[in-house]
Amino acid sequence: MRPLDISIIGATGAVGTVLIKLLGASHIPVNRLRLLASSNSIGRQSTFRDEICFVESLGETDDIKTDIAFFSAGGAVSAKWGPLFAAQGALVIDNSNAFRMDPDVPLVLPQVNPSALAVRPRSGIVANPNCSTIQLVRALRPLVTAFDVHQIILTTYQAASGGGLIGIDELLSGTRTALDGGAGPSAERFPVPLAFNVIPQVGETAPEGVTLEERKLIQESRKILGMPHLQLTSTCVRVPVVNGHSEAIYIEFEEPVRLEQVHELLVKEPGVRLFADGIHEGYPTPRFLEDPADVHVGRVRVNPENPRGLWIWVVADNLQVGAALNALLIAQLAIANNVIGGT
Amino acid sequence: MRPLDISIIGATGAVGTVLIKLLGASHIPVNRLRLLASSNSIGRQSTFRDEICFVESLGETDDIKTDIAFFSAGGAVSAKWGPLFAAQGALVIDNSNAFRMDPDVPLVLPQVNPSALAVRPRSGIVANPNCSTIQLVRALRPLVTAFDVHQIILTTYQAASGGGLIGIDELLSGTRTALDGGAGPSAERFPVPLAFNVIPQVGETAPEGVTLEERKLIQESRKILGMPHLQLTSTCVRVPVVNGHSEAIYIEFEEPVRLEQVHELLVKEPGVRLFADGIHEGYPTPRFLEDPADVHVGRVRVNPENPRGLWIWVVADNLQVGAALNALLIAQLAIANNVIGGT
Repeated sequence: MRPLDISIIGATGAVGTVLIKLLGASHIPVNRLRLLASSNSIGRQSTFRDEICFVESLGETDDIKTDIAFFSAGGAVSAKWGPLFAAQGALVIDNSNAFRMDPDVPLVLPQVNPSALAVRPRSGIVANPNCSTIQLVRALRPLVTAFDVHQIILTTYQAASGGGLIGIDELLSGTRTALDGGAGPSAERFPVPLAFNVIPQVGETAPEGVTLEERKLIQESRKILGMPHLQLTSTCVRVPVVNGHSEAIYIEFEEPVRLEQVHELLVKEPGVRLFADGIHEGYPTPRFLEDPADVHVGRVRVNPENPRGLWIWVVADNLQVGAALNALLIAQLAIANNVIGGT
Repeated sequence: MRPLDISIIGATGAVGTVLIKLLGASHIPVNRLRLLASSNSIGRQSTFRDEICFVESLGETDDIKTDIAFFSAGGAVSAKWGPLFAAQGALVIDNSNAFRMDPDVPLVLPQVNPSALAVRPRSGIVANPNCSTIQLVRALRPLVTAFDVHQIILTTYQAASGGGLIGIDELLSGTRTALDGGAGPSAERFPVPLAFNVIPQVGETAPEGVTLEERKLIQESRKILGMPHLQLTSTCVRVPVVNGHSEAIYIEFEEPVRLEQVHELLVKEPGVRLFADGIHEGYPTPRFLEDPADVHVGRVRVNPENPRGLWIWVVADNLQVGAALNALLIAQLAIANNVIGGT
């Protein structure tokens, strides 16, 4: 295949930085890589396959023609620029919330619903799911495929990196100040200071009391799994972890399940690493993740008092599995399916 | 009433230290306060009502006669010394796990089951519930009294102080090292390093995969509420918070509930502080607790897709509400009921 022109919008952010690294290590042939960001980042540079790339300002370029445009600069940037790039022929792979629930935009987890990208989407845009949805759905897939689900109840333990590099900085500087006995800088990225704290709010809260993150989990899981009636409810919580989201998930099935069946399904699932299965001991924790490309599952246990109830503990690198790596896998799937190169 | 002789066993620990302060501020008349701990702590001192008290070694005293003995030095110390103090006439108020499920030992939350202490217990011992049970049951009480419960599913976000002063030290020193780029000291108090991490294990794990903390929540809630068939399941998780446990609790009732009813019940509950009720804005977080003597409840919401499902977010000071304050309230209840002074 011919080498591709690729643009990364949001190239200096937490996800963009990881994406440049993963793209460099991939086998995707690249003709020209353009790094785009806000005007604050002009002149910053990154190394891509041993070459130096300089960051350009998105607002000051006229030439937006490219084969693939990865967007990871927030919903407003995607909403404005995504359709413009797509109109110039790019396949837009968008990491924001701007288009995920658009019926013309496939929401793709390559391990779960690759067929959603069998043909080029009409809008020219493919959406990458939200980070906490990705690890949830990748762990759920084998289970909800094998057994009928009654309901899913989960809570999250989400890292500062979900709030970008600013989120990480705010956690680290707030932690330093707190250790020195100070009150810490006031919160900007998070609703209240995150250092030595947990915050039961991720994203805006709607009038009925549900947060944006909690709504995303429901809507996106249903769309990806093709299960519009999936019953799922959650409380999403930010915790003072630098990187790596964790989820405590309780799945109530319609019928009793046996632990051995569940183990067998999870062990066979590609990209899922099961703990306490005789190979990996203990359970995963976000700071000591074994592989940033895997979804780590531990504490798998059937409720001793209700054989229809199953707990799992799921941890993944939210910047890789939950964002950049999934975007790259979407690109590879699109290349394999020949859906690159639009109007 | 006559001033009482009181002993605090574990006087230099996280809970003991708080208890000395709370007892000093209380109206309980004290004749003699003895502070007891392991021989490592001999000669350390504390201030109690403007007087200096020196710490004595528990193992080197012959005189253990006292009116009230507060134990907070771990299960092994309570198991060995609790019955000896009780045999000498003390009412033992035990903060450990040693006697909680003993049928001869009342497990008392003064706000919930004060009648359990109407007469002096046969064993002379009263048990203080586990910290995470206390805040759970205090928030649940008005709800499970008003409505029939189908099941309760919860996860916890438990602070380092639940592991005592050693736990706090391990979190703070591990955090400093991590900020300086080091790997941090290896974990001793917790299963893996807690700094910038979350650990889905509190207490030992039984062969069937349930941890001790998760088992305590079920057994103790049933005993305190007098609901032996209460369906409750949990995942308990340690988080890098210094002090203050949080819980995300999903209650499924047998019938639909209205948010207004739930608000009304929680607002009326003594010692429960409701957020987003028109008085207290937002939601509670452990680092910024308004009152260490209250149980703080926020993010109260009915599941929009299942009117039988209710989420609440419950935060409390685990050293005060969850331990020392409850022990003190038990003592006050025992004094009011004239059950001090045994065989």
